[in-house]
Amino acid sequence: MKLTRDELMEAVRSQMPASRWNHTAGVMTTAVQLAEQYGVDPAKADLAALLHDVAKYWPTSKMEEIIREQQLSGDLLQHDKVLWHAPVGAVVAERDYGVTDVEILDAIRYHTSGRMQMTMLDKVICLADYMEPGRDFPGVNRIRELSNQSLEKALLAGLDSTISFLIEKGARIYPLTIDARNALIEEIQAGAAGNE
Amino acid sequence: MKLTRDELMEAVRSQMPASRWNHTAGVMTTAVQLAEQYGVDPAKADLAALLHDVAKYWPTSKMEEIIREQQLSGDLLQHDKVLWHAPVGAVVAERDYGVTDVEILDAIRYHTSGRMQMTMLDKVICLADYMEPGRDFPGVNRIRELSNQSLEKALLAGLDSTISFLIEKGARIYPLTIDARNALIEEIQAGAAGNE
Repeated sequence: MKLTRDELMEAVRSQMPASRWNHTAGVMTTAVQLAEQYGVDPAKADLAALLHDVAKYWPTSKMEEIIREQQLSGDLLQHDKVLWHAPVGAVVAERDYGVTDVEILDAIRYHTSGRMQMTMLDKVICLADYMEPGRDFPGVNRIRELSNQSLEKALLAGLDSTISFLIEKGARIYPLTIDARNALIEEIQAGAAGNE
Repeated sequence: MKLTRDELMEAVRSQMPASRWNHTAGVMTTAVQLAEQYGVDPAKADLAALLHDVAKYWPTSKMEEIIREQQLSGDLLQHDKVLWHAPVGAVVAERDYGVTDVEILDAIRYHTSGRMQMTMLDKVICLADYMEPGRDFPGVNRIRELSNQSLEKALLAGLDSTISFLIEKGARIYPLTIDARNALIEEIQAGAAGNE
């Protein structure tokens, strides 16, 4: 099924409460800005941002069904349900909305966890999700400031805020997030060494 | 080569500065106390604690040689050198000091990183290393308090302090430490559920 952008927006909007749609709209605006700033295709950023939370309000059982059917990453069901909507969203984007671009699907799939060796589009979507104008949490302004300096440094600060929040809560940390953070630090260090 | 305990203490002491020997002696005392408190063999705790930092002051090149020779965990050389002395120490304990007990060797091997599904002896050595009387860092007193309540909760607080310190420093986090922390949280939750 191929929808126009307006139809797709309407389809996504109808699957979430108004507040989450406002968040999605914020991520779209921010992702396009970041894409333009860092030389990423803005149309891809727009579409990935529009669809990133498409499954966020799906019933847990429906998400679990897709995770089992599609044999998505084995440890997912053992981890916090808050992680599930991202890989499920990628399946929905492809299956229900005809998205075939692997980069866009991956950016949706990894927008919550991050992953080792993130693409530029992965980074843009993950960072936009942290810093869209509606977000308000300790450290969000520092992330916004860093986003003018370095995509990687800003995203690192975002992942750090997630990890610190999980430590504060006594909750488990998804290993992929640590892989993502470690790889970002290596990229930042390699970049700094390259600039010397 | 089979040494008496006194000879072994002398052999370890001679390989490190006085301050680190004081730390080792502190870990020995604390590990034996924790072992008695939590039903672990105190003699194993004593020997593992005595040897846990045996390779701490070895030259990096000598540690690297052992890591390559023994094909210790592949990602180790990519991570902070501060991690190296633990698996190298296990090799040294076996090769140079004739320790054959797998539990003791594992407790030495994983005392810095932790690992998924730590044994009771692993936990005792890792926790004693955090909280021996000479240690002084933010949160150490909370770890000591928790150690009277639960080995797992105290060790979790210790690993949390390491992770927070690495975040503060912008340094990478060793994935095994996250595995260890996630497994401890599961154990604590299972225990709490069991007590309901």
